[in-house]
Amino acid sequence: MTAPRRDGGSPLTPPRRDGGSPLTPPGRESRFSYLSHLECGRCQQRYDADVRQGLCACGSPLLARYDLRAVSAQVDRAALASRAPSLWRYHELLPVRQPAMVVTLGEGMTPLVPLPRLAAEWGIADLLMKDEGLLPTGTFKARGAAVGVARARELGIGRIAMPTNGNAGAAWAAYAARAGIEALIVMPVSAPEITRAECAIAGARLYLVDGLIGDAGAIVAGAVATQGYADASTLKEPYRIEGKKTMGLELYEQLGWRVPDVIVYPAGGGVGIIGIYKALLECQEMGWLGGKLPRLVAVQASGCAPIVRAWEEGADRAQPWQNAATVAFGITVPMPLGDFLILDAVRGTGGCAIAVSDEHILAAQARVAAVEGAFICPEGAACFAAIERLRKDGWIGGDDEVVAFNTGAGIKYPQTVRVRPPVLPAGSDLPGARAKTARGPSGPPRTRAQPAS
Amino acid sequence: MTAPRRDGGSPLTPPRRDGGSPLTPPGRESRFSYLSHLECGRCQQRYDADVRQGLCACGSPLLARYDLRAVSAQVDRAALASRAPSLWRYHELLPVRQPAMVVTLGEGMTPLVPLPRLAAEWGIADLLMKDEGLLPTGTFKARGAAVGVARARELGIGRIAMPTNGNAGAAWAAYAARAGIEALIVMPVSAPEITRAECAIAGARLYLVDGLIGDAGAIVAGAVATQGYADASTLKEPYRIEGKKTMGLELYEQLGWRVPDVIVYPAGGGVGIIGIYKALLECQEMGWLGGKLPRLVAVQASGCAPIVRAWEEGADRAQPWQNAATVAFGITVPMPLGDFLILDAVRGTGGCAIAVSDEHILAAQARVAAVEGAFICPEGAACFAAIERLRKDGWIGGDDEVVAFNTGAGIKYPQTVRVRPPVLPAGSDLPGARAKTARGPSGPPRTRAQPAS
Repeated sequence: MTAPRRDGGSPLTPPRRDGGSPLTPPGRESRFSYLSHLECGRCQQRYDADVRQGLCACGSPLLARYDLRAVSAQVDRAALASRAPSLWRYHELLPVRQPAMVVTLGEGMTPLVPLPRLAAEWGIADLLMKDEGLLPTGTFKARGAAVGVARARELGIGRIAMPTNGNAGAAWAAYAARAGIEALIVMPVSAPEITRAECAIAGARLYLVDGLIGDAGAIVAGAVATQGYADASTLKEPYRIEGKKTMGLELYEQLGWRVPDVIVYPAGGGVGIIGIYKALLECQEMGWLGGKLPRLVAVQASGCAPIVRAWEEGADRAQPWQNAATVAFGITVPMPLGDFLILDAVRGTGGCAIAVSDEHILAAQARVAAVEGAFICPEGAACFAAIERLRKDGWIGGDDEVVAFNTGAGIKYPQTVRVRPPVLPAGSDLPGARAKTARGPSGPPRTRAQPAS
Repeated sequence: MTAPRRDGGSPLTPPRRDGGSPLTPPGRESRFSYLSHLECGRCQQRYDADVRQGLCACGSPLLARYDLRAVSAQVDRAALASRAPSLWRYHELLPVRQPAMVVTLGEGMTPLVPLPRLAAEWGIADLLMKDEGLLPTGTFKARGAAVGVARARELGIGRIAMPTNGNAGAAWAAYAARAGIEALIVMPVSAPEITRAECAIAGARLYLVDGLIGDAGAIVAGAVATQGYADASTLKEPYRIEGKKTMGLELYEQLGWRVPDVIVYPAGGGVGIIGIYKALLECQEMGWLGGKLPRLVAVQASGCAPIVRAWEEGADRAQPWQNAATVAFGITVPMPLGDFLILDAVRGTGGCAIAVSDEHILAAQARVAAVEGAFICPEGAACFAAIERLRKDGWIGGDDEVVAFNTGAGIKYPQTVRVRPPVLPAGSDLPGARAKTARGPSGPPRTRAQPAS
């Protein structure tokens, strides 16, 4: 495997094109997608985007490339405002070529919610949360699934298989059902239980594995080799990341075509943060975005922090994390395939990688709910635990504008809140005093630090 | 109690105004809200909107009235397209007077999802689902909570109390936390369990009652009388309905300022359908909407159908339903306070009221997920069960455009899907044949018809 390219920028940087693109003959009318080809994120080998592709021959993920010059000539950002509030408003920068191939449940344009009370508490000029819980299936995974499934259908794929920590599988199962594609999903027994119901009701073929996501991946690899499934594992097909990158596009548009100082994102497989970085680089390339990029922060749990360890050691690649375990189950990924891309996104923006404890994650989750009203998932809460610490350490400054991504709805994680409300008989009166027992003896809701099982 | 007004139209019809409104002096600049006063939905008594109000002296709900002539002169519908995709885009028609008093988690502009495969299966020209699961707290209750809590804060209310079937309490607890308002929530022990966690983590004072929502209401009434809480029960304060009516405004805008032939909505307390009807009448009054109104269908479960019984009997009021029980727990409301308003919405539009069985509800839920990819709540599924039957009966015609509301995310109802996937040891291979056991022996996911407990 070749070393990551260090000459001439990030592997995520779209290649600069000299002269007019062969894909945009003069006078040609606008296209729905300006996808041009696929390119290895590591060795830059080019591949045809219009046939089914997996990894590069060198074993690294392929990235979708677009005729960005044509997009920038074609798309007026101001005119985007009148498009429907879904991620498909950026269709020129997405890989689906035919509008009829779009598979949508209305995903995208999630709200950017100000958190003024937490900002004041932590001494930060502006703190905003992009709430990815408000998507179909309740997590940001819907973005990758919508675009990935749509492109799979366009390429004639009829069966997909994937390992998952639960939420990605639930999302791909839903979109696959909508597209009429068969889905095989394998998840750890410890994945959030609701995701089993989501896969089942969508008609997916579902298995649990007594292990972690890597064990699920090994089972899926076997099914791909012997049973004719297309492999939809993280970064093993090129289009999931394209859906995820719309988080970056939306944030940029929602801030009035401006970027914040810091973006904080929980990193498991890392496609979210890789996608946001890819979006920002594409906006730079199109001349939409000048000046400094936001510092990207990859947040992991201290019980599974291979990226943080590699970042601290100055390494280009991560090493597998032993005995991984955290309440933020979605980021329990001991060895992400896109490790070098995550590290590149962090280093390329002057960002950092940071690990936070389960205790701190659950405390942050409770604080965000009590102070700002949002019930977020533990992976999202990890961002707030990280922000609090980075502000204390001075890495985040008092005048920084900080955007955290909540990657999913708290309602998918009932076990993160312990609650034992009093039960009254019908016809009785409420106890007269404020009953402390309603929220547990110590005031705030009690939480427990075990992952779901 | 006076009989419902039958002379001169619906109690929801805004009064026509002759001459200029005293609230719009000539040359006055645009206002954030055009709220003018409150009016009893039954006896038309007027009340001051700028002090805290509950029910009318006659015992009926108060409705918010606006200076609609001024709104229609002030608001250019086409210009709305560039406003942020939240329900606050309609702020002129909402009761919050000061922008700084808005309490928001990014609620509104939920997607209108086409369901082409179900439409073809059932022989309907166009079938669309407005998916209210994509709101903060995962249900449509967020709309009423956002507007109700914001207006409560604006009126200086510091403590609210309410009975709930779960989801309304969860939503009001979240928005109250965001607004810094104390919330007392009482819900039946059978309400969806996740809503307990939502109330608790938001810091609400939470009690369960061994009974139904009426029993919870009696306990809340005692707390309101003796402990200084403002009563936020369904229709006992005037502003929840204003949040709900934005469902109608959004639908109208999303269809290109056009209405469908039929709107199907699950009715428990009925505020959703009342709100949609109120929105349509206000649009008529402003001259935005001409022609026929959509036929409004109120859907109930056969285990709790007081509105359907009253409708079938031609009665003006409902009678309490005995031994109420249904898997669609959110619409288990044996005696809705707004019964006459629901019946008016149905009759005033040439609509109907229909009851469907739990078995049919769960089958519809499974079908929508398997065919269209959306995991909806049982209350939303009741709409589809109703549509299927109304189409078979011919009440819905083959060329009708039908919009169903899914009022919440299926992920809040894990007990509606029974799933027992096979567990594989790490390192094993997938069974070679397509394993029927992954979805239960009979293909589609098995469901059970018991409500949550």
